Amino acid sequence: MKKFVAGLTVATIAFASVATAQDAPFAREIKARQGIMTYRAIQLGVLGGMAKGEIEYDAEAAQKAADNLMVSVSIDTSMLWPMGSDNSANPASTALAKIWEEGSGIGDKGKAMAEAATAMQAAAGTGLDGLKTAMGPVGEACGGCHKPFRVPTN
Amino acid sequence: MKKFVAGLTVATIAFASVATAQDAPFAREIKARQGIMTYRAIQLGVLGGMAKGEIEYDAEAAQKAADNLMVSVSIDTSMLWPMGSDNSANPASTALAKIWEEGSGIGDKGKAMAEAATAMQAAAGTGLDGLKTAMGPVGEACGGCHKPFRVPTN
Repeated sequence: MKKFVAGLTVATIAFASVATAQDAPFAREIKARQGIMTYRAIQLGVLGGMAKGEIEYDAEAAQKAADNLMVSVSIDTSMLWPMGSDNSANPASTALAKIWEEGSGIGDKGKAMAEAATAMQAAAGTGLDGLKTAMGPVGEACGGCHKPFRVPTN
Repeated sequence: MKKFVAGLTVATIAFASVATAQDAPFAREIKARQGIMTYRAIQLGVLGGMAKGEIEYDAEAAQKAADNLMVSVSIDTSMLWPMGSDNSANPASTALAKIWEEGSGIGDKGKAMAEAATAMQAAAGTGLDGLKTAMGPVGEACGGCHKPFRVPTN
């Protein structure tokens, strides 16, 4: 029991810095989802760099990035998108409220990303041509959400 | 080929906002790892809340949070911790440089977290007592890194 209480105290300390940043509406959810998006972008930076010839193709590195992309696309992020956690509630977010509108098709867009990442995972380590072919649908799936549901940037 | 190029263009647009925030050293890595930490904290908020009696125990919700914790602990974050990406390089990070010192034992600390999360995943849905028992080692594993390797907060 003593050990359990000690564990909880440590956990409370661990959460303290999160709580401080949690003052703005949905700050935790926004921070988590943007961090996971950034993680995906890092993996896509490797894959896209190889596709564009900016990074030399390396089967092992490509496979690793594709595996990481798959995990980061599969992780359950449903609790990070509570209705109303958009740019109008907290400018730290670039999400638009129409994500939650009926008929937004957000579920299908998520599925499209999962499918594109699955195809990338199967192709990335097989050769540069396979990686390039798989890159198109991945980029389209990114844009499938970013174009309609994100505050336009200059 | 046209479709591929279109896909790449969309991907480039998708990465643009990341690139903007990427000016500070290691900004992308720090954003991604803090976001993933926050995701873990959100899951632990559910589990810890139930352990402390602040949230009513719900087997399904507990299992879901433990499953999510497990995925977020398993995800490969090695590329998010390049040597030198600590608080002295970018104050947005609270990481201390001694993470990378020989003998820091950081690998063992990661393993301790994986083991604690595995035990939590096995226990969380079986009942409140099991969840409480599993919470101690999880809290200790959080503190195993946060206490020695994080800038002290007031």
